[in-house]
Amino acid sequence: MLPVDPDRFLSDLHALRRFGAAGTGKGVSRPAFTPDDIAARDWLASRMAEAGLTPHFDPVGSLFGLAEGHSLLMGSHSDSQPEGGWLDGALGVVAALEVARAAQEAGGPPVSVVSFEDEEGRFGVTTGSSVWSGNQTLEGADALIDPSGITFAEARAAFGDRRGDFVDPARFSGFVEMHIEQGPVLDTTGEKLGVVEAIVGIRDVHVTFTGQQNHAGTTPMHLRRDAFQGLAAFNARLAERFAEVVTPATVWTVGHVALHPNAPSIVPGRARFSVQWRDGDKARLDRMEEIVRTTAAEVAAERDLGLDFGPMIGLDPVTMDRGLRGSLERAAEAEAPGRWRTMPSGALHDATSVARHMPVAMLFVPSIGGISHDFAEDTDEADLVAGLNTLARAVSDLGA
Amino acid sequence: MLPVDPDRFLSDLHALRRFGAAGTGKGVSRPAFTPDDIAARDWLASRMAEAGLTPHFDPVGSLFGLAEGHSLLMGSHSDSQPEGGWLDGALGVVAALEVARAAQEAGGPPVSVVSFEDEEGRFGVTTGSSVWSGNQTLEGADALIDPSGITFAEARAAFGDRRGDFVDPARFSGFVEMHIEQGPVLDTTGEKLGVVEAIVGIRDVHVTFTGQQNHAGTTPMHLRRDAFQGLAAFNARLAERFAEVVTPATVWTVGHVALHPNAPSIVPGRARFSVQWRDGDKARLDRMEEIVRTTAAEVAAERDLGLDFGPMIGLDPVTMDRGLRGSLERAAEAEAPGRWRTMPSGALHDATSVARHMPVAMLFVPSIGGISHDFAEDTDEADLVAGLNTLARAVSDLGA
Repeated sequence: MLPVDPDRFLSDLHALRRFGAAGTGKGVSRPAFTPDDIAARDWLASRMAEAGLTPHFDPVGSLFGLAEGHSLLMGSHSDSQPEGGWLDGALGVVAALEVARAAQEAGGPPVSVVSFEDEEGRFGVTTGSSVWSGNQTLEGADALIDPSGITFAEARAAFGDRRGDFVDPARFSGFVEMHIEQGPVLDTTGEKLGVVEAIVGIRDVHVTFTGQQNHAGTTPMHLRRDAFQGLAAFNARLAERFAEVVTPATVWTVGHVALHPNAPSIVPGRARFSVQWRDGDKARLDRMEEIVRTTAAEVAAERDLGLDFGPMIGLDPVTMDRGLRGSLERAAEAEAPGRWRTMPSGALHDATSVARHMPVAMLFVPSIGGISHDFAEDTDEADLVAGLNTLARAVSDLGA
Repeated sequence: MLPVDPDRFLSDLHALRRFGAAGTGKGVSRPAFTPDDIAARDWLASRMAEAGLTPHFDPVGSLFGLAEGHSLLMGSHSDSQPEGGWLDGALGVVAALEVARAAQEAGGPPVSVVSFEDEEGRFGVTTGSSVWSGNQTLEGADALIDPSGITFAEARAAFGDRRGDFVDPARFSGFVEMHIEQGPVLDTTGEKLGVVEAIVGIRDVHVTFTGQQNHAGTTPMHLRRDAFQGLAAFNARLAERFAEVVTPATVWTVGHVALHPNAPSIVPGRARFSVQWRDGDKARLDRMEEIVRTTAAEVAAERDLGLDFGPMIGLDPVTMDRGLRGSLERAAEAEAPGRWRTMPSGALHDATSVARHMPVAMLFVPSIGGISHDFAEDTDEADLVAGLNTLARAVSDLGA
């Protein structure tokens, strides 16, 4: 395994969290394009140079630390949520820096590092990696506006003359991203590592049942067309039907509900609600969509309710590369025998975009209490080091 | 039967709807204390005087047309919703006027008439009859404020020197109120008349389930504490348990739902919702409250949710007087053999307040499509006349 230095890695990780330190625990506030974010990237660029890599900012502020020639790319992002943790993104960048540095010291294999800009979506979703991978054009991204009314074009101008051209993706053989899980699975099972099988796809649709708004005192139960009771019946039947097709990793959520007129003394005339489901298998997402549509139509027909579907929002699952994933699995078993699992990623990551260009794989370490996007986000340092070592083992395996 | 005049009755009813005519169908806009409401009461007072009754405004603007000596009181209210129908309240007042007039012409029995003020609750709930019956003090009512910031004291001053003292309830042997059903039962069954058994009681409570707000992508189903799923489970189990104790006339409603944070990608951490149930039997209301509390506690325990109950709002049922109701039933059978029913009133009426002082009974006629509190409210004129005749028969029966 590459001779990575856990102390140097942890020291860099703690050094990075001083940029935008929130003053609450280990929390950071380092949103994309803010002075703290740019200062953190300048510091990372200097650490890359010290490690023998060539720092390079692309037009949107994504920072690459390039090894010579054809190389494996590793990294994540160093921008944070407005109230974020010290590890979300930063862990993957600093671990990549340590692996690349150790590889430089060991004379190979060549590893490049990246910190993508605006993964947290001040301007969209994984904006920096999305533009780099061609998911959206730079011109299109430039028109995006953040909640305060600033355009992406104005925001990225803050990088000034640091910026060069886009890096050619053909330089890289693949992309490996380590990240905190941001969920409770590993923390609950006590496992140390998760090798991601797929970044799940999402379907999200708003459904509206329209019944008859009526007086809650004078309208007998058998004459009601109660839109909330339609939602309740749909929800129950959906769970029964989903049970026949889902895996333990599949999730679905009714997170948004709006009744009309939403008053205690009035039978609800309208219920508008979200149904969102996520899974790593596109065929299963399709099957679930069919169940959502069929079940809603059945309930509407049985209860004499109007039915309307809003637009179906969807992102397809991204399957991890078999070869890269296999190296991570062997490394995980060597690092923590019997104490790792394969699992889906329920959240989006930069790897989703990068997968358009090259093979990708991801490694998770536990999130204490499953907490993320919160100043309280944390991971045991022993688990951080286990993740670093697993990356080092995998790179040795791949480079051999 | 008293020799009531259907044409004179319908003529008065149409004359009354000219005060505050909305210009949309037969709709009226005659909220309490507005110039149209006061003008309508002045016109009613003149019709009462012409009928040989003594008009008398009480301190809050409720208008009595008093027969001499001890009498039966009949009536309802002549104020309307801001967007109201021509019959809600007005029917009961004008029918009482015709019955009292016919009784005067026939030499008895003595019938007095009332139009209570602000039944529609610009300032509360059935304000005029509530103050008259001592449900609330005049001083307390005077502090009530309407949605525009006007106090009840300011509003009732518009009646100026029309007003005398409160009428002594001991003058009256009982109170009979005819009203449109404001629900779909008679219209659906094709029956002509409904003799009210009881004005239902109400219980209304807000329940809050508190779970764990979480990422809808990274939180596995089995680790969720989803407050909306708690509500859905509660709602389903409540229906099962209620089925063991309710009658076809019992109603219950979940009309208000507020999820937090109410976003498609977040597992709901909190669900606050109303549960309201109505029934004519206090013991049944109690039993249903026990079921609501037990079921919510069970669901909270099973799903590891926090549980909080808001204040329990309650009004007890008002049972109709056996004697008065018997007269209405005999009259209904004579007027429309086999085409009437006994039924609860799911809505509140002035009779609820008046029952504190004397025996009360109510008669319903159909509402076309069950529609009320809407310009479209209407009833077939033949059904209005059937109601009038039923009152005339009942008064003859009582006066005999």
